[in-house]
Amino acid sequence: MAELSSPQKRKRSGGRAGHAGRRGSALIEQAPWTLPINRDRPTEPMSEEGVARMHNAAMRILEEIGIEFLNPEALDILKAAGCTVSGENVRMGRDMVMELVAKAPDQFTLTPRNPDRQITIGGGHILFGNVSSPPNYWDLEIGRKVSGTREQCRNLLKLTQYFNCIHFAGGYPVEPVDIHASVRHLDVLYDKLTLTDKVMHAYSLGPERVEDVMEMVRIASGLTHEEFDASPRMYTNINSTSPLKHDWPMLDGWMRMARRGQGLVVTPFTLAGAMAPVTMAGAVAQSLAEGLAAVVLAQIINPGAPCVIGTFTSNVDMKSGAPAFGTPEYMRATQMTGQMARFYGLPVRSSGVCAANVPDGQAMWETEHSLWAAIQSGTNMVYHAAGWLEGGLIASPEKFIMDCEVLNQLIRYMDPDIWDTSDDALAIDTIAEVGPNGHFFGCQHTQDRYTTAFYQPFLSDWKNYEAWEAAGGVWTVERAHHMYKAIVNEFEAPPMDDAIHEELQAFVAKRKEEGGAPTDF
Amino acid sequence: MAELSSPQKRKRSGGRAGHAGRRGSALIEQAPWTLPINRDRPTEPMSEEGVARMHNAAMRILEEIGIEFLNPEALDILKAAGCTVSGENVRMGRDMVMELVAKAPDQFTLTPRNPDRQITIGGGHILFGNVSSPPNYWDLEIGRKVSGTREQCRNLLKLTQYFNCIHFAGGYPVEPVDIHASVRHLDVLYDKLTLTDKVMHAYSLGPERVEDVMEMVRIASGLTHEEFDASPRMYTNINSTSPLKHDWPMLDGWMRMARRGQGLVVTPFTLAGAMAPVTMAGAVAQSLAEGLAAVVLAQIINPGAPCVIGTFTSNVDMKSGAPAFGTPEYMRATQMTGQMARFYGLPVRSSGVCAANVPDGQAMWETEHSLWAAIQSGTNMVYHAAGWLEGGLIASPEKFIMDCEVLNQLIRYMDPDIWDTSDDALAIDTIAEVGPNGHFFGCQHTQDRYTTAFYQPFLSDWKNYEAWEAAGGVWTVERAHHMYKAIVNEFEAPPMDDAIHEELQAFVAKRKEEGGAPTDF
Repeated sequence: MAELSSPQKRKRSGGRAGHAGRRGSALIEQAPWTLPINRDRPTEPMSEEGVARMHNAAMRILEEIGIEFLNPEALDILKAAGCTVSGENVRMGRDMVMELVAKAPDQFTLTPRNPDRQITIGGGHILFGNVSSPPNYWDLEIGRKVSGTREQCRNLLKLTQYFNCIHFAGGYPVEPVDIHASVRHLDVLYDKLTLTDKVMHAYSLGPERVEDVMEMVRIASGLTHEEFDASPRMYTNINSTSPLKHDWPMLDGWMRMARRGQGLVVTPFTLAGAMAPVTMAGAVAQSLAEGLAAVVLAQIINPGAPCVIGTFTSNVDMKSGAPAFGTPEYMRATQMTGQMARFYGLPVRSSGVCAANVPDGQAMWETEHSLWAAIQSGTNMVYHAAGWLEGGLIASPEKFIMDCEVLNQLIRYMDPDIWDTSDDALAIDTIAEVGPNGHFFGCQHTQDRYTTAFYQPFLSDWKNYEAWEAAGGVWTVERAHHMYKAIVNEFEAPPMDDAIHEELQAFVAKRKEEGGAPTDF
Repeated sequence: MAELSSPQKRKRSGGRAGHAGRRGSALIEQAPWTLPINRDRPTEPMSEEGVARMHNAAMRILEEIGIEFLNPEALDILKAAGCTVSGENVRMGRDMVMELVAKAPDQFTLTPRNPDRQITIGGGHILFGNVSSPPNYWDLEIGRKVSGTREQCRNLLKLTQYFNCIHFAGGYPVEPVDIHASVRHLDVLYDKLTLTDKVMHAYSLGPERVEDVMEMVRIASGLTHEEFDASPRMYTNINSTSPLKHDWPMLDGWMRMARRGQGLVVTPFTLAGAMAPVTMAGAVAQSLAEGLAAVVLAQIINPGAPCVIGTFTSNVDMKSGAPAFGTPEYMRATQMTGQMARFYGLPVRSSGVCAANVPDGQAMWETEHSLWAAIQSGTNMVYHAAGWLEGGLIASPEKFIMDCEVLNQLIRYMDPDIWDTSDDALAIDTIAEVGPNGHFFGCQHTQDRYTTAFYQPFLSDWKNYEAWEAAGGVWTVERAHHMYKAIVNEFEAPPMDDAIHEELQAFVAKRKEEGGAPTDF
């Protein structure tokens, strides 16, 4: 644990939230932490009639076909609330669905241990989280795909903390398969809570894990149980087992978190042509039905529980059966889901995803397509927004840095200062002053504004070819690699109170002694 | 000329338009030639009041500050039409401007020598052209920036013809500096007209060049002069010399083409902080004023002449003064220009641009930003949509191929089949049939649709990491390089009638004997 505790030791004298702005500023210049608002009108491919038809299809799936809930407790709750339960199949009428879904808030906050890192889900915000759950890792130095380790996971968590454009910590940025599965959640949550002060996530992979993570988040925030339950402090994300099924551990975590009023994200993985119809409308309808079914369950348990409807609808490569991401069909499915989420009054989650195996041009155009789909759909939470490769099977620090450059540009893109049409911005007097034979470099209007007028990249190289060549002719992926090394080497963990840190360590030690979580559910 | 004439010789027996679909199909599978329609609602950052303020600013520039027209003939025409001319400064009232701009059509056709390649500018279409005018070239084999040559130019023209997603041939895809400037236009237009059958462009760089190019296009199309003049067959693009100036040769070409009813695109190069105000609203207002002034001139000369308003407003890197492209500010300026173009009832031109020096991740995220700005702005003509690097100073065949993969995805993105919500697409019966324990691979609904349900890439590699590695672990840029070589090696020029070909060759020979065009204007 020596390696683990040292960053914290150095920072223990610091205040809780005072250093976020300064930290790392020596390495790169990045915009300060902000919760960007997406003011663009969403792109809505479906007509009003199309929305009605899509809604009707989702309701018919819930009413006529039903969803399987592989969890007896969930079945009891749904039956008591008036659903038609037959074995594990649950059907529910559209009136009930709409009444319960309407209880979910259209926006809510999530407050991590550093209250300055509170985020608002909904309300026009678009927020970004790190890549989550790849079992494998790739970086330029290793040069090949390898199994994830705790050290890689910690390094990616440092990037998660370092970049202001990452608003919440998703699942494990890479699965540290060198830690036994029974205690993995304890070690990684310890790393997450000490290396970052952003909003935490719990995998719904069994009661012990969910309870442990909630307890660790509570301890790290210095809260009583009552304070923890009083407002959302963290969230879980569950995936249905498409088609038409929610499995036991996902539902168990979902219900536990619902009872305690924590954030709930449901994201069916409806790959068109595999786990859902080959047509995008069918895949979206099925995804909505699966997602809304979980929202209904949460609202029965805790009316007003904060829910987010996610989309992971994409298509397979019909040649190989492999999933593809950032495709034209993926983009439209995401937009269609956003359109329906507004119809249901729910915040939306989508992703920053690609099929590419290495952080090259393809990786960036596919990721750009998924990020623009997020913006166009009115997405509020963008999962996997930094570091994702190979359809989520690889995490890469270079890709993480490249994505953060893009995210910073997108955040600046949302700054209404750019399209200000005040007299100052229209600058007629300046145009008259400079006239046809001058230039604007030296004029007062420029001098007063040039340091903040334009986005300044930290990774993009805007030098001309000759200057770029003279500086070594370094391609983007290699620049990102050097930046990753520098950030990790100079990383300072956010401050944590000594007593809290010790309580957290003690909790981890105790739970390890008890054997952690079962691995055979 | 042996190398030049051989492709044509092989094809002389073919019909004019019959082979476009078949050609090259052995190499890659690409979607057929189509004129995509952009049905997305444009992204409009400015409020209605903002539009009014922007219009007022553009009008005040025209009324109070004026534009310099460095061409006596243009000055005479503008003066006779009622403008206030003082030396080279021309001021014009907003009533006159709006009356004349209203005469320009909101859409028009351009018909090249192969009438099947006719394109419609406006009317919701978004069309793409190749990179134009870089003086330099880079490819993976050479591995460094070199001066452009005719061979490179010809190879890039082959790509222009090969890819169905390229709708029009812009300027020279790389400047062949190994041909003397006096005859360069003759050789390149010969190459363009024989290697492609798409819409042609003329540089407005002196009367001889413009007249030669119009004559060569007329000959290649087998038209009389009257037929050529009867509808737009080609176009020119002029850039103002910002701030506030149109220079002699640009105006000369503009007026010649206006008289003959050909396509007219005006694109001020208003780099905010250099040739225009540092604020984007000011840069856009100035760009609009410069552009509208040229449209006014064209409409005086030939009311109803087909005009397009272009935008090339971006920002400089305030650290180095170098231009940057695909920036957040670039995107919003493009959207704002699109908003104003709709206000004026004019088609819009923007670009597919980047600052990156090599075709890597940065090149693709910057190009993606400019392409999405084109879509969001309602752009009708996307210049430089394939092959551009280093702010337009480098043409690259690898970048060309990578861009074409993206363009194909964007064209598919616009296909309304994706968001069809018919009963067939919603597929409720299929969802019921497959149920919670099946999968959709084998069902009839999938079998009936899987070959056409999803976009299939030609360059993206969707294999998993292991399969990709087994196939050599080839990064995108290298895959693009191999594809470039294969396309060029197997290229077949579009058919051209023997007599027309000979007439074209004779014209080039005669004009070369006469000395070509002066190079000292």
